[in-house]
Amino acid sequence: MDDVLQTPPPKLTRTQRTTFKRRAQRGSHERAAIDAILDEALVAHVGVTVDGQPRVLPTAHVRLGDRVYLHGSRANRMLCAAIAAPCCITVTLLDGLVLSRTAFHHSMNYRSVVLYGQARDVTDESEKRAALHALVEHIAPGRSLETRAPTEAELKTTLVIALEIEEGSAKARTGPPIDDAEVMNDLCWAGVLPLKLCALPPQPDPQLAPTQLLSPSVQARARQLAPP
Amino acid sequence: MDDVLQTPPPKLTRTQRTTFKRRAQRGSHERAAIDAILDEALVAHVGVTVDGQPRVLPTAHVRLGDRVYLHGSRANRMLCAAIAAPCCITVTLLDGLVLSRTAFHHSMNYRSVVLYGQARDVTDESEKRAALHALVEHIAPGRSLETRAPTEAELKTTLVIALEIEEGSAKARTGPPIDDAEVMNDLCWAGVLPLKLCALPPQPDPQLAPTQLLSPSVQARARQLAPP
Repeated sequence: MDDVLQTPPPKLTRTQRTTFKRRAQRGSHERAAIDAILDEALVAHVGVTVDGQPRVLPTAHVRLGDRVYLHGSRANRMLCAAIAAPCCITVTLLDGLVLSRTAFHHSMNYRSVVLYGQARDVTDESEKRAALHALVEHIAPGRSLETRAPTEAELKTTLVIALEIEEGSAKARTGPPIDDAEVMNDLCWAGVLPLKLCALPPQPDPQLAPTQLLSPSVQARARQLAPP
Repeated sequence: MDDVLQTPPPKLTRTQRTTFKRRAQRGSHERAAIDAILDEALVAHVGVTVDGQPRVLPTAHVRLGDRVYLHGSRANRMLCAAIAAPCCITVTLLDGLVLSRTAFHHSMNYRSVVLYGQARDVTDESEKRAALHALVEHIAPGRSLETRAPTEAELKTTLVIALEIEEGSAKARTGPPIDDAEVMNDLCWAGVLPLKLCALPPQPDPQLAPTQLLSPSVQARARQLAPP
């Protein structure tokens, strides 16, 4: 039952700024595609406009249902700007370098999501705790069971903001290079160099007791991001 | 002699929007730090403001001397916006997940650069060719020797824009988690899970002649991004 109730709308409404003008086949308004990219990415780039100047800053994010949450210090100017005026949240997964036979057709394989809207200061304590919990879980699923939850004081100094997943789209390029027929006589090797974010061996905090074993959550994350 | 002439100014001038308000120890205006991050990153996130709405899109970039170049179709709305009004170019390298003993101190190790300014349409043909050459070289050094250079027609349909590296800064977080003394009694494992972008085995274009060997540039890039 819960699953049925929590099913997101399958598609985002197309707006003027999320209508694909070129290469429409690379775009999607499907929630499933959007959610999968938001959930895999570890970093979001958040755009705000301050005094007419666009500013883009990287930050951690997490999707929880139909919202993307960001957090930071109460003094964080980017977060404050994102609740005061429209913002943009973009996440990008780089999947490969596309090496074509001509300089012109070089490209990259990627999956990205762009979301538009105005974020909201999360003031409700239970929503705020749920968002912070999810942010830790997004770093390493299961981690929140191992660590100390935020104190009242920590909660107070943290600003959590939420953007509804209402306007936006996903975009992706996949597959081999697209070369013009006249260069298909194999000027040189062409293809894709796939890329993947990999975890290297965990580095214990120098202050950690040597008897302390690697936590299950970190073990799992390291396994999930293990090099091929 | 050339090296001396091409030495960039060692520091960017600090402006109001590039003055670090918090955690100033994580920031830098040094050109060497900025250039190293721009040169390692494969993707930039470009912020523009269109009708009051910030938009952030991922794209390939390259630094050449004191400029960052972007390119795309002549119809690319993001590039057109970046030459019509101020823009922001941000690149981020994700270096690790920082797993502290408390939810509050979880973080990420990263290196990022934020540049501000208004970009310029590159109309001079030799500058445009140099920028496109550098963009291919940025994907895989040496690749431009292997591939066909842009034709006149390709050059015409491509928009290349340049942003001077004049206003901006680099920021980085490195090292182990920072936990409060009272939780140092090792609630759980704490440390860093280092992350690195890795190349998987190259995938030849299905249309490639089976006799065609892997190009030196792709071999070198794959080696440079080899998994540990």
